[in-house]
Amino acid sequence: MKIAETKQETRKIVKEWKKQGLSVGLVPTMGFLHEGHESLILKSAAENDKTVVSVFVNPMQFGKNEDLEDYPRDFERDCSICRKAGADLIFHPCPQEMYPADFFSYVNVDRITEGLCGSDRPGHFRGVCTVVSKLFHITTPDRAYFGQKDAQQLAVIKKMVQDLDFDLQVIGCPTVREADGLAKSSRNTYLSPEERKAAAVIHRTLEYAKEAISQGQRDAGELKKELVSRIEKEPLAEIDYIELVDGELLQPVKVLKKPLLIAAAVRVGKTRLIDNYFWE
Amino acid sequence: MKIAETKQETRKIVKEWKKQGLSVGLVPTMGFLHEGHESLILKSAAENDKTVVSVFVNPMQFGKNEDLEDYPRDFERDCSICRKAGADLIFHPCPQEMYPADFFSYVNVDRITEGLCGSDRPGHFRGVCTVVSKLFHITTPDRAYFGQKDAQQLAVIKKMVQDLDFDLQVIGCPTVREADGLAKSSRNTYLSPEERKAAAVIHRTLEYAKEAISQGQRDAGELKKELVSRIEKEPLAEIDYIELVDGELLQPVKVLKKPLLIAAAVRVGKTRLIDNYFWE
Repeated sequence: MKIAETKQETRKIVKEWKKQGLSVGLVPTMGFLHEGHESLILKSAAENDKTVVSVFVNPMQFGKNEDLEDYPRDFERDCSICRKAGADLIFHPCPQEMYPADFFSYVNVDRITEGLCGSDRPGHFRGVCTVVSKLFHITTPDRAYFGQKDAQQLAVIKKMVQDLDFDLQVIGCPTVREADGLAKSSRNTYLSPEERKAAAVIHRTLEYAKEAISQGQRDAGELKKELVSRIEKEPLAEIDYIELVDGELLQPVKVLKKPLLIAAAVRVGKTRLIDNYFWE
Repeated sequence: MKIAETKQETRKIVKEWKKQGLSVGLVPTMGFLHEGHESLILKSAAENDKTVVSVFVNPMQFGKNEDLEDYPRDFERDCSICRKAGADLIFHPCPQEMYPADFFSYVNVDRITEGLCGSDRPGHFRGVCTVVSKLFHITTPDRAYFGQKDAQQLAVIKKMVQDLDFDLQVIGCPTVREADGLAKSSRNTYLSPEERKAAAVIHRTLEYAKEAISQGQRDAGELKKELVSRIEKEPLAEIDYIELVDGELLQPVKVLKKPLLIAAAVRVGKTRLIDNYFWE
């Protein structure tokens, strides 16, 4: 497995592969890899001749009061996980390599970035779309792998690829969970033992939603009320949002029908966690 | 020479070329080709194994009160010019092919799009950057050719390519002019004989600027005043802007030094014409 810190070196390696007719999968990450990322790398390695993992904590997608400085990092561990999962190249640039002085070009997806995490985190998806566009241009993948845990991000990237005619396939992969159902996230490391226990309320509540729908619940307002009340029963949890939206344009719905996304962002202590249930 | 109306067909042809190791040049146009475009196609054909010309009047770069509907079109003539100049493929999509329903992803370059044409034409450069990004993704050129007549557009595209890591070279080509110096433009066709004659004032004035600088003029304010007064002497001409800006970030300067862009937008009758002098 190779490690490249520059765009130039990364391009050179990928071009050599492409010249040999090899297919390339990309797994964009912010590092501090967990089993969720691992599942993406494994899938990419299974579906492509070569797999690139990018490890880059992207400053542009963090708001001013967010956790950019504190975001956990462990590059050595990341390397070892990538190697075991079958990655062929890690692209690990410094911020200056990605954003030199006088950087002011951006990619933006409107509408589906307005609600959910977009309203809490202005500029977040612009940062995501911009860095992912850059990564696509640098690594020219045939397939790119994203976790379904970040459901809005996945929808936004899919839309961007479709609208801007990127010639690649975006592949969403199932959320990997802890034993109690908590979605794997690099941010789980922030949680105290008590908070960690409390955080299970999110998935438990989404499981309740799934069950209610399977039993015929079709009223979005009623279901939302029930979900909110279930999360509010957990004293350590504070809801950022819980929304029931259509699974394509992510607009709020009144009547529940497929494809439906139920997305939640909940603060447990100071840690903001997201999760979702997708009915398709 | 082939003509493709769909993205899919265009991709297929270009991929076949790339598989053979051939280099590809792209000349993005809005059609109604003149000798300016012709010079771009000739240069691309000389520098690349294959040349793609896109012919697409891009609705996204026109403002609400601009000339989208009236913009001149003559596809048969365009084909004949492309063929003679050495193009291998024309990509000629319909608006629906480029912008299906529910299109809402955009590429934007800030700062250098704020002044000059950007302040007169809000959204114009967002439209340009978005369509050019799409064309780059569809045709994957090694080199892309743009006229220096649209100096701000050229600077914006260069910045976009640099910031977003498009893997291609942007090549600016000299403005082609009529005998009296008027820059060739598809919009010149709008001019009445009287207006056509009056329009020569733009280049004449920029030539004066060039001469004044070569004789040591370094005061931007003084020179601008003189340029404005020279254009105002032409009764059929009305200045949209005339600006003296640095040649990279396009910010107004007080003291003239290289690289310097003197850019003018002038209405002659109802027709908005642009031209510039680049001191480098």
